[in-house]
Amino acid sequence: MKKAIFFHAGCPVCLSAEQDILNLIPADQIEVVHLGDEKDKVADAEKAGVKSVPALLTPNGNVLHINFGASIEDLK
Amino acid sequence: MKKAIFFHAGCPVCLSAEQDILNLIPADQIEVVHLGDEKDKVADAEKAGVKSVPALLTPNGNVLHINFGASIEDLK
Repeated sequence: MKKAIFFHAGCPVCLSAEQDILNLIPADQIEVVHLGDEKDKVADAEKAGVKSVPALLTPNGNVLHINFGASIEDLK
Repeated sequence: MKKAIFFHAGCPVCLSAEQDILNLIPADQIEVVHLGDEKDKVADAEKAGVKSVPALLTPNGNVLHINFGASIEDLK
């Protein structure tokens, strides 16, 4: 089966969202791509329809853009 | 363990997003709430921080708002 891909860019307020996603989805079904570190994958992400991060590209090609926003805790 | 809760309101363009989420997260770790059908749960969702649907409330209390947008296929 094709894996889901979680795209992010390492923004501190999104790390919690990433951890939540990884806790929920079995490890063998998801790949994580850090677009800040892996800049050669930005074009691929864009081609897949990713408009903002974090975003989850599902195995069937849908892109779920996630607006986590900032947790109050992260702003303290 | 507390389950994640996927809140939605049955909008046709979001059904695909829902199915994707349910395919990725093991069934025993997620509950689905249709706020259109279960209006008594709207207040709970609001209290948990849900501002729009679809949204995923994670077991640790974060709310991931999902912007699926409309797939071109759904608009044909």
